[in-house]
This record gives sequence, structure tokens and C-alpha cells, in this order.
Amino acid sequence: MTRMVDLVADLGEGFGAYRMGDDEALLDLLTSANVACGFHAGDPRIMDATVASCVRRGVAVGAHPSFPDLVGFGRRAMDLTPDEVRTDVLYQIGALQAFATAHGTRVRHVAPHGRLGNLVATRSDYAAAVADAVAAVDPSLIVLAQQGELAVAARTRGLPVAIVGIADRAYRADGTLVPRSAPGAVIHDPDEIARRTVRMVTEGVVRTVDGTDLPVECDTVLVHGDTAGAISLARRIRDELTRAGVVIAALTEVLASRAGAGWCHG
Amino acid sequence: MTRMVDLVADLGEGFGAYRMGDDEALLDLLTSANVACGFHAGDPRIMDATVASCVRRGVAVGAHPSFPDLVGFGRRAMDLTPDEVRTDVLYQIGALQAFATAHGTRVRHVAPHGRLGNLVATRSDYAAAVADAVAAVDPSLIVLAQQGELAVAARTRGLPVAIVGIADRAYRADGTLVPRSAPGAVIHDPDEIARRTVRMVTEGVVRTVDGTDLPVECDTVLVHGDTAGAISLARRIRDELTRAGVVIAALTEVLASRAGAGWCHG
Amino acid sequence: MTRMVDLVADLGEGFGAYRMGDDEALLDLLTSANVACGFHAGDPRIMDATVASCVRRGVAVGAHPSFPDLVGFGRRAMDLTPDEVRTDVLYQIGALQAFATAHGTRVRHVAPHGRLGNLVATRSDYAAAVADAVAAVDPSLIVLAQQGELAVAARTRGLPVAIVGIADRAYRADGTLVPRSAPGAVIHDPDEIARRTVRMVTEGVVRTVDGTDLPVECDTVLVHGDTAGAISLARRIRDELTRAGVVIAALTEVLASRAGAGWCHG
Amino acid sequence: MTRMVDLVADLGEGFGAYRMGDDEALLDLLTSANVACGFHAGDPRIMDATVASCVRRGVAVGAHPSFPDLVGFGRRAMDLTPDEVRTDVLYQIGALQAFATAHGTRVRHVAPHGRLGNLVATRSDYAAAVADAVAAVDPSLIVLAQQGELAVAARTRGLPVAIVGIADRAYRADGTLVPRSAPGAVIHDPDEIARRTVRMVTEGVVRTVDGTDLPVECDTVLVHGDTAGAISLARRIRDELTRAGVVIAALTEVLASRAGAGWCHG
Repeated sequence: MTRMVDLVADLGEGFGAYRMGDDEALLDLLTSANVACGFHAGDPRIMDATVASCVRRGVAVGAHPSFPDLVGFGRRAMDLTPDEVRTDVLYQIGALQAFATAHGTRVRHVAPHGRLGNLVATRSDYAAAVADAVAAVDPSLIVLAQQGELAVAARTRGLPVAIVGIADRAYRADGTLVPRSAPGAVIHDPDEIARRTVRMVTEGVVRTVDGTDLPVECDTVLVHGDTAGAISLARRIRDELTRAGVVIAALTEVLASRAGAGWCHG
Repeated sequence: MTRMVDLVADLGEGFGAYRMGDDEALLDLLTSANVACGFHAGDPRIMDATVASCVRRGVAVGAHPSFPDLVGFGRRAMDLTPDEVRTDVLYQIGALQAFATAHGTRVRHVAPHGRLGNLVATRSDYAAAVADAVAAVDPSLIVLAQQGELAVAARTRGLPVAIVGIADRAYRADGTLVPRSAPGAVIHDPDEIARRTVRMVTEGVVRTVDGTDLPVECDTVLVHGDTAGAISLARRIRDELTRAGVVIAALTEVLASRAGAGWCHG
Repeated sequence: MTRMVDLVADLGEGFGAYRMGDDEALLDLLTSANVACGFHAGDPRIMDATVASCVRRGVAVGAHPSFPDLVGFGRRAMDLTPDEVRTDVLYQIGALQAFATAHGTRVRHVAPHGRLGNLVATRSDYAAAVADAVAAVDPSLIVLAQQGELAVAARTRGLPVAIVGIADRAYRADGTLVPRSAPGAVIHDPDEIARRTVRMVTEGVVRTVDGTDLPVECDTVLVHGDTAGAISLARRIRDELTRAGVVIAALTEVLASRAGAGWCHG
Repeated sequence: MTRMVDLVADLGEGFGAYRMGDDEALLDLLTSANVACGFHAGDPRIMDATVASCVRRGVAVGAHPSFPDLVGFGRRAMDLTPDEVRTDVLYQIGALQAFATAHGTRVRHVAPHGRLGNLVATRSDYAAAVADAVAAVDPSLIVLAQQGELAVAARTRGLPVAIVGIADRAYRADGTLVPRSAPGAVIHDPDEIARRTVRMVTEGVVRTVDGTDLPVECDTVLVHGDTAGAISLARRIRDELTRAGVVIAALTEVLASRAGAGWCHG
């Protein structure tokens, strides 16, 4: 049976006169994009141009909603009520949907950004708030998440879920990521990152910090584009996956193949 | 033939801990609401609650996009490019659409706010930018405008247009409003406002500052709710229109009746 | 010996077109004002007008710095680094100092707002960050704080400290406030609030939720002005203090009298 | 007589996670810095770090206030009242002063940014508003301006004025700059920019677009650091000025030498 996987990265993370990352180089490699929606990065011009680029390159557009914290780039925890999280996420998804519609496409997935993205893996109230927002605005939207509370909340609501593999981050035995503040949280060696990615996708396991192999789902692989090295690593990951017989495909196809095969989500 | 007209007001113009106007009192009187979208007022909680209230009361939801100027309440001119206007408007409409969808309704119209709303009557570049945004996101959206460039731009693109009558503002012979900075721009006498409203709707004319009767279209009447006096004036306008045999109806019905009768837009 | 105490309230907490509280009525009653600096409320026009009003009425101007969270009115916890807290506070104090200088006065004290104000009572890292900011910009600034980490950090740096008595909030046996989310946290009965205030100031004790009398310092009493009832309660507190022989005086005089008498801070 | 001139550039124009320009490379070349104050760019961390760097390198700190337009980088005209301009400028100067004080220095000059900087050359109301703000907060602050209304307004108020020479922009016969939108507004040839700079400083003239030599004052030369080419051009300008016998000196020294010699401002 052919393995399929999606390749995703965060795009459109500039703001006003500022740019971040080489979006054009990344777009050649991706099948999906998490597009910033203005709360941590992105503005209406950047969103418009990013969606237009995605459409031109055949890359699926996803929303990348964040805490409302532009100066902190969405990386700082905020103590919001679930209703604040839900409505902030609704607002951001809707804003991106307008650009998708204007460019003849649809928003296909939602992937919470930064600290919100971390917290929804463990905080069930935030996870429920994000899932409620997605269910209310478009229940066909794929929720892109790590293993954790958001994936559970989304499945409970009947939303399609795609589990993201993060090959440059260390995993703990419970499937959560080692926090950035801990030593060894981020893996820098390109060889190891590429090797881990291929194992995640083809074998469905990742080596944890305890040295054991943890079974993981991996519907999409998160790559980065914020440095020259990141772009070449993303290209290498794509190449090594292809060489290992994996088909890089849109998330909707990946999920359809999973549904058919019963693989990985089994 | 029965005259029909819509009654509209700006709603949801608080922000965070701040409130503005008595939205609940107004909702009893309106058939349409211009809902702030976060750029001059409004935040995701207020938008959510305002749309929910509109749905409960059967009031049609419209977007009220603005220049990005929260501290200035969207009342200060900004020198934007048409692309900046277009993308800012797209963003705001989309954000509101998410709340409309979440509450089982749709955004029905778009009415630019404040200084943007003034400028689109005379600046063809801004008018085209707003009309382009509306056409791109949903060509069934009704463009709510004064007579002027935006109405022209919207009709050119095949968008439905509703002309708003502003009974407490003085009109010039060319159909534009006397600028707020000029003496006599705003009419304060409730008797005169009520009388002007009824004439606009039933006779299709308004007395200009020159003392002549100017033919005007009037598909919807703009009322206010920011003071206790405003609410009672809005109620009186509604009552006097009804007494004059006018049917207060949703904008879609008003436009349908115009289309059938050939009245007013002829 | 004559008891002296300062009366303080939060002022200038509008934003743009929004107003909050009846500042003019409050100014008749106060000796000090905590002026919002733009991060949770306040904008340059409001800061300018508030400082001007304070100068006209002989009310001392203090800075009321907040987390950067306008939409949340500074009431939501944010997980900032100490350096982020320190620099945010420096920025806000400096901004207010410009208006003080322009109106021929000086900023006299600093009182952290909202959630930041709560957290500095218990988080030593935030307390140190605020105290570092104050020490760096003007070591003669009085730090207005509840008993807790900020008071300790300020004293460690040689900064003058004024302890604020909050008569409408329940105290725990350790001198901290019962959190707002807990039942009984806020006292609503005006009689009880007035009685507690007088005891705090004249006897130096407050009845805790455990029913015991806790010794408390009280250099300044916090009153509110956001409702009509609040204004009349503030007036009553002032009147009852005066009737009890307490002199309402500027914070600098209060602290000078404490230093001379060794009372209350002993 | 020795010619003296200051070298200035805009610094600290990043925001949050974003950086703009190579400030560290520029700091080796400058005697003054226009430091962004948070309205078009800059945030409290960046302001703190920029002022610290300036102090370490012996570069004088100036405020670079802007219209409140982060997403537009302060480059878009806004129709503000003079009071709005005055209070926005006061706020920004004050915020920067706090960082200057914290690092043991003082703000030495004020140079309006972007579109505000352009408009104060021709709009007397904005010019008066900026000069009023400076006079109110610190009348020893040097106003850095092109020839035009701001220079006039500042001198009328007794404020010290430094005229900035902008060697990469085309001048019209009346001493104003050719607008960026017009062809030939920006000079790109490094040889010509260097040559124009030396003439401005040593001969006190600039060749206008009409081909005539216009007498110009030049107390400080504006250089840029936003590209690798810009840094090397800035270094070349400094080298060629030095080779031409010009002493690169702090703005206060430059103005003192002018006052003594009667040169250039005569």
C-alpha cells in the first residue's frame, strides 16, 4: 500500500512592511499552508497575496489563528475564557475565508498557531473552544493538530482531524512535545530530522527522548521556511520521503486514503 | 401601491469593556443592522453577541467595514491605496460572515462606516475598491450607499444597491450631504427629522439647503441609538412611517418590491 | 496624633470615542489619580485631558501601567518575561511623564493596573520587573501596592512605597485579596465598605474572611467612579474618614507623616 | 573654518519578532539616531535595546514619532487634528525619554517619521502641533527637519533646529523634495549620492531637478541601513566627507559651531 502524506508550513507571517520567511521558495515544496490571519502576523494585503500564491501553486489554504498578540507573535500564553478563544478563532477563520473566496478557493483546514497551538494539546477548555469555532463555521474544515486534547475535541464533534508530525522537535513518551525551554527540545541536525520524518511517515513511529519507539500518526509533516537552511531542509525532507516511496499529496487525499485503508488512524 | 422601506442603524460599536449605544432598544425597531467588524469598533465577542441578537429579533445582518483606526473610531480620513481599501474591506466582511454562519444566518449587506462611508460617495477609487471587495466575496450582498460613486461602482459590477436616506443630515442640490464641519449640516429638531423621513420615503424627495425639492431614492432609513433621545426619535420615525402607510420591511423585500414596481430606482 | 490618608482612583480609562467612569465627579474627592497609559485604556488625548484636570484640581498624577491588552482591559493574565514587563512599564511611565511635564507637574506614583496589579502581589519576577522599571526611570516615584511582592521589591530597591487599602474586597488571613472568582470576594454593602475603610485607616486593621482582625497598613484608599453609586460611596468614604478625624492628604504628605511618626509601617 | 556635520539614520524600526535594517552596522557610522517609538515601528524591547546600543557607541538618541499606523509603517497620510498630532507626538517622545533615562542619557532631538515627516514641511498646522509638543516636553530638544514649516514653527518657539540633508532625494527649486511618486524622486547612483552629500555639506548647495544650484543648510546627513548596499553607501558617505575635511560630530556640537561661526544658518 502506498503511503501518502501532506507537507505543510506556516506562510504569510509578515506584517505591514515586515516580511518573515521565504514563502515563494516554500510554496514549491508544500501541499498545504497555514496562513496567518492578522492576530500574531499577517495583514489583509499579505493574506490576499498569500492565498493568491497558494492558488497559483495548487497549495491548499488553511487558517492559522492565534492569540491576539501581534507584538509577541502569538508565542505568549494568555489567560482567556473559552468564549474569547472561540470568538477570536471564528473571527480569524472568517477573515481568511473571504480571501479564499475572492481567489476561487476554500479554506481547507485550521491549525492553531504558536502558544495557542501548544495549549490546545493539553488544555481541554481551549481545545473545545477551537473545535466549537470550527464546527460552527464549517464542519468540513480539517483540524490540524498534534495528538492531544484538540484532536479529541475535534473528533468528538465529528470534525476531520489531521495529525501533524513535527520532526525537529523531541517527543515525550506520552506523545507530547518536550517544551522549548527544556534542553534537547529542538533537533537541529538535518540528517536526524530527515530520518525521523521518514520513520514517522513510513513506519508510524518516532523515537522519544526515553529512547523508545512511540507509535504516532502522521498525516502531514510540518516544515519551516524562515532561514535558507530551513528551505533546503524542507526540500530534502520532500526528496527523502519521495525516495522512500511516499506520495506527497493534499491533506484531503491523505485523509481519504487513511479512511479507505484504515491505516495510521486505526 | 404600498411603499416599503428598511430601517437600519449601526450596532455593535462597543469595544472590549466599552459599550456604545443601546443596541437592545434599537433592535426592536430595526429591520437591518450595520455591524462593526473590529477596525473602528467591535471585537469578536461583541460581533458574536450582536449577530446573535439580530438573529433572535429577525434583524438582517450587514457588515460595517471601516478604515483601520480604532482610536479614531474610523472618523479620520486615511490616504490608502485602492488595494488597501479592498483588502481591508474583504477582511472585515469575512470576519463577520463567520459569526453569521455560526448563528445560522448570512451577511446581507455592506455599508462602509464613518469617513470611509463619506469618501466612497465622491472618491471613485475607494468606491471601486469597496465594490470589488463585495463582488469578490459575495455578489449577492446588497451595497448600502448614499447616492454617489459607490452606488455607481456597485451597479456597474451588477451588485444590488440600496440607497440610504439620512434624515438628520442636510442635503445639497447635487444629492451629497453638507459636510459635518459646515453650519446646518446636522438637523437636530425631531419634528423636522420625522417629517423629512416621511417625505423621503413616501414622496421620494428631500428639501435641500437651497430650498428646492430634490428627488431621492430611499430604500432604507438610517436611525441612531447612541442617546436616549435617539432611541425615542427612532421609534417615532418608525411610527410616523407606519402611520403614513409605509411598510417597514427587510431590505431584500424592499429591493424586490422596487424591482417589481419600477419605483424609485427607475 | 492625626491620622492621614490619601484617596486614589483609576482615571482616564476611556479610549478614543469611549468613556468610562465619571472622572470629573471623582476629581473633587481624590488626592491622587492612577492614570491609564494606553495599554489597557487611555489614549494620548485622554491622558492629556486627565493630567490637565488633575493639575487644575490639585490631584497628584500617578501612572497606571498594564499588560498590553486593550481588548481585555488589562484584566487577562499574560505570560510575559520579566524583561517584557519591565520595558512595557517603562514605556507607559515615560509616556505619562511627557503629559505631566507639559502640564507643569510630575508623575508622583506608579500603580500597576488590573491583572498585572494582582500578579505583582504574588509573582516575585513581575514584582522585580516593575520595581526595576520604576527605579530606572525615577527612584523618587512612590510605588503604590498591596502588601506583597511588589512592596517588598520596591523597598529592597529603596523606593518609597504606599500600601493601598481596598475596602470593597475581602482579605485573607495572609493579607492577600480573595480572588474575584471566589464567592464573597467583592463587598457590595456601602455601610460595610465605609466601616471597613475607617477601621483600616484609624485602627490599622481589617476583618478577614476568617473573622479575625488583620493588621494592615493603609497609606491610600482606593475608590471607584464607574457608576453613580460608586461616586456617592466615594463621597461617603471621604466624609466618614473626615468625621473620624482623618486628614485626607496627598500621598507625599502621608508618607512624610508616616516617616516622622513611625506609624503604620512600623 | 572646519565644516562639521552630524550623521543620522532611522534605527530600531523592527517590531516584535520582526527586524528591519542592520542597526549594529549603522551604529559604527552614526553620530545620531532617530529611534522609532512604537507608532509605526519599535516596541518597548526594541526601544530599550536600541537606546542601550546608542549609549554604548556614543550615538545621540532622538525620537522618531509617527502617525499611529503600524500596519502602514507610518507612510500613509492621516487627517488628524493638530491636537491629535500634538498629543501623539508627546506620548511617543515621553516613552522614549523613559528608556533614555533608564540608560543614563537624554533624548537630544525629535525627527518626525515618514508621512508625518513629509507633511510637517508643508502643513503649518501639523508643524505647529509637533513644535508645540516639543516645546512642552523639553525646549532643549533639537528639532530635526527639512527646510519648511516645521523648521519655521520650531524657530518661532525658540527651539533649536537642525536641517537634514537628504542626499538620495531630488530637490525642487523651492527646497522641497520631489514626491516619491514622481519620476526621478529617488537617486540610486551611489557616486551621485556621495557627490551630492559632499557638496551639501562643504559648499552648502544642492543641484535641483531644474539644474540650478540651490543654497541649502545641512546640519545632519540622513543615511540608511536597510540593505547591504545602504550600509556600504553610508560608510562611503562618511569616508568622503572625512576626506573632504568635514568633521563628523554630534548634533549639539554641530549646532554650537554654527552658532559660533554664523555659517550656514546665516
